[in-house]
Amino acid sequence: MSQTPVVPVGGMRDFLPLDVVRREYVINIIKDTFQLYGFQPVETPALEHLATLQGKYGEEGDQLMYKVLKRGAKLARALNPEATEEDLADMGLRYDLTVPLARLVAAHAHTMLPVFKRYQIQPVYRAERPAKGRYREFMQCDVDIVGVDRVDAEADVINAGVTLLRNLHFTGEDDFRIRLNHRRILQGLLAIAGVPAHLAKSALVAIDKLDKIGPEGVRSDLAQRGLSPSSVQILLRTMTDLVQIPTPADMLAALHRLLADHPEGQAGLQELETLTALLGAGPAHNTLRIDPFLARGMGYYTGPIYEVQFPDLASSGGGGGRYDNLLGHFHGSRIPACGFSLGLERILLIMEQRDMFPADLAAAPQVLVAQLDPAVSCYLHRVAHQLRADGLRTDLFPAPGRLRRQFRYAEKQGIRYVIIAGETEAAAKQVAIKDLTTGSQVAVDTPDLLRVVRQLLGTAT
Amino acid sequence: MSQTPVVPVGGMRDFLPLDVVRREYVINIIKDTFQLYGFQPVETPALEHLATLQGKYGEEGDQLMYKVLKRGAKLARALNPEATEEDLADMGLRYDLTVPLARLVAAHAHTMLPVFKRYQIQPVYRAERPAKGRYREFMQCDVDIVGVDRVDAEADVINAGVTLLRNLHFTGEDDFRIRLNHRRILQGLLAIAGVPAHLAKSALVAIDKLDKIGPEGVRSDLAQRGLSPSSVQILLRTMTDLVQIPTPADMLAALHRLLADHPEGQAGLQELETLTALLGAGPAHNTLRIDPFLARGMGYYTGPIYEVQFPDLASSGGGGGRYDNLLGHFHGSRIPACGFSLGLERILLIMEQRDMFPADLAAAPQVLVAQLDPAVSCYLHRVAHQLRADGLRTDLFPAPGRLRRQFRYAEKQGIRYVIIAGETEAAAKQVAIKDLTTGSQVAVDTPDLLRVVRQLLGTAT
Repeated sequence: MSQTPVVPVGGMRDFLPLDVVRREYVINIIKDTFQLYGFQPVETPALEHLATLQGKYGEEGDQLMYKVLKRGAKLARALNPEATEEDLADMGLRYDLTVPLARLVAAHAHTMLPVFKRYQIQPVYRAERPAKGRYREFMQCDVDIVGVDRVDAEADVINAGVTLLRNLHFTGEDDFRIRLNHRRILQGLLAIAGVPAHLAKSALVAIDKLDKIGPEGVRSDLAQRGLSPSSVQILLRTMTDLVQIPTPADMLAALHRLLADHPEGQAGLQELETLTALLGAGPAHNTLRIDPFLARGMGYYTGPIYEVQFPDLASSGGGGGRYDNLLGHFHGSRIPACGFSLGLERILLIMEQRDMFPADLAAAPQVLVAQLDPAVSCYLHRVAHQLRADGLRTDLFPAPGRLRRQFRYAEKQGIRYVIIAGETEAAAKQVAIKDLTTGSQVAVDTPDLLRVVRQLLGTAT
Repeated sequence: MSQTPVVPVGGMRDFLPLDVVRREYVINIIKDTFQLYGFQPVETPALEHLATLQGKYGEEGDQLMYKVLKRGAKLARALNPEATEEDLADMGLRYDLTVPLARLVAAHAHTMLPVFKRYQIQPVYRAERPAKGRYREFMQCDVDIVGVDRVDAEADVINAGVTLLRNLHFTGEDDFRIRLNHRRILQGLLAIAGVPAHLAKSALVAIDKLDKIGPEGVRSDLAQRGLSPSSVQILLRTMTDLVQIPTPADMLAALHRLLADHPEGQAGLQELETLTALLGAGPAHNTLRIDPFLARGMGYYTGPIYEVQFPDLASSGGGGGRYDNLLGHFHGSRIPACGFSLGLERILLIMEQRDMFPADLAAAPQVLVAQLDPAVSCYLHRVAHQLRADGLRTDLFPAPGRLRRQFRYAEKQGIRYVIIAGETEAAAKQVAIKDLTTGSQVAVDTPDLLRVVRQLLGTAT
């Protein structure tokens, strides 16, 4: 009979009880922290019109998007040997939570406050090559502020991100860092290296890979993209020089010198200075590092960009930036916005490696009602009901049978106390409570059952 | 610029903060109740291999399934004018949570306990025609017991469902009912009406529509499906007779008489009697109604079936049944199982209609820190940090500007207290706290701020 696949589709995962409980522990802390910062929750559908998604994430994003087949007559009309993916599909699975937010804001603009602070925690879908900590279905946790073009907003979303990491017991001393940059500083550095405007976007794609392929990798990638040898030389030298500078204050000073003649770069630098000062007044103050070659992939960023970096993780643990033009695609006019997105899967990975989960997370039952004899099933169902009605997490073994098997079942779940009754006990309105740790057993009258069980569990009320 | 669609795809919804908060309120009660009954959480991916999903839900299910387009070379090979949906797609969006559970159990059979009690709360996807309370993306909340072929398991899942409705403040007196039936009783009733075996499945599809199209609708549908006039006559008369019988006990007696000569029907009847007795010992005891023509759509049910019925809802609010053969599709051998699935969307709909949500559900901020003057932004960011570090949900207006606009922003969110500081206050290490309800304003030294705010909010610790 075993003809149907039993493994999940490539790059996606089943979560067993311990996985789910750990994920929910983290997600609840994230929600509480976002609410502490004044953000409120929204959710959007997993599917979006393909036209909503396409062209927002760059070429790679369009390729990695899951597309949903048209149906019935629509599909029949679209079918021919030259049909493209766009002919055959009219919807796609959400690729991030930022584009859906932009669409939602445009749809509800008439009822929204001028400043909209939202968080959103939902899975997103990308057909990327699976790797450690990289999945095709993964949870994103986003905070965004819509309607504000000042870096006060960036400070708020970054502080929320830093605080939630602290609430998960990361210290921020040496176990994570916030890297900051500004798209205009990047543009300035490209310009003073003599990179022509039409190659700037392509050059950023190469620079974005610095963490993955190192300076020599970036050097040859830049050359392949058509940058002149002198531009490549200047860019690489600037990288090497700047990477030595330790403090944000020294880095800002160095950039001021470098970008003295570049008004665009100066404007970015001023915003970054203000942002650094605001962040200095909050929880992120000792986690900051300015990294003038941080690029971040998404095509929609326009201002400050930032990333969480964990020392034991090659790729970023989350990040974000300002995207002042994205909402214009959906709404008649430009609406400024910025956000911060946390990569839940990678944080879970690090927390597991560093053993950061509380030991007592399980939602396992506290008591098992065992079953020996079908003749007293109703009696035992009533006992289980009594325990549950009192709020005790109670499992009822759903078939009469040998006790040894039921004891093993209880032990595997960490249940210490098993309630047992046969015909004799039922007739006497009693049960026996067996302690699987000590092996001892006591008889209890059912009116006393709740009190005794709570006493045993140490949760007497 | 407004060229991209801003509404969600047909049949799917955006959830704004109040929606999300209400959904989470209900989902948390559902989780707590399932844990109270000894169930533990699992999750599965939104996408499954098409081969996993197809052929499990009947013809309609295969049609309503969302299928994901193949990619790259695989798609190119599949493309021709006669290509079917199955040629072009290799994955589908999950259609329910039962088939994914069956796959998960088979995948993890080697590490699982012989009895596996799980709950799963995730959205599912069906390309149905949208209607009131029927969406194309909707949340299912399932409990299942795998590995047990006794109706003790059915009693446990039904009790969990009834208890969670009670925990949501449904009473079970007259605001919902549990309808019970057994697939073998249905088979018996069809057999004694002279319906040939090869028409039985088709006849069930017609009978399943009874609630929607009424007895006359069912009569003509049955005739169209090729049942003889006498079979249709007997079935309709039996329906009319049985619908009069009020109590489960009387109904069981009537069915015993009707099915006296049908061993298959008798076997089903005996299981239903045991189940009714077990349910009588628990929270469902006064909610039961035996409905011998309840059919339920899914093709995989093999034993008892059940449904939650709300008087103010035409379709069911959830239900389930035994599906002893489904796991065999994935696992080498037969594994018995049964479950109960709650339709969250319909329950939310009823709760909204009946005004059953607590009034104070919002996760809105408790305080707003307003901003007048960019010169003191750092000071105000520090004040906000102080409040948040103490656990107060604090919004910081992310741009200096006119106070009146910020007061309106606070009022719209239900925030009563606004904290204000200009250069004078900052120099004196003070802030003003404005009460938007009374209009009064007090000056506070920052060391006293937490104490005063907590006093005002009535949450002094």
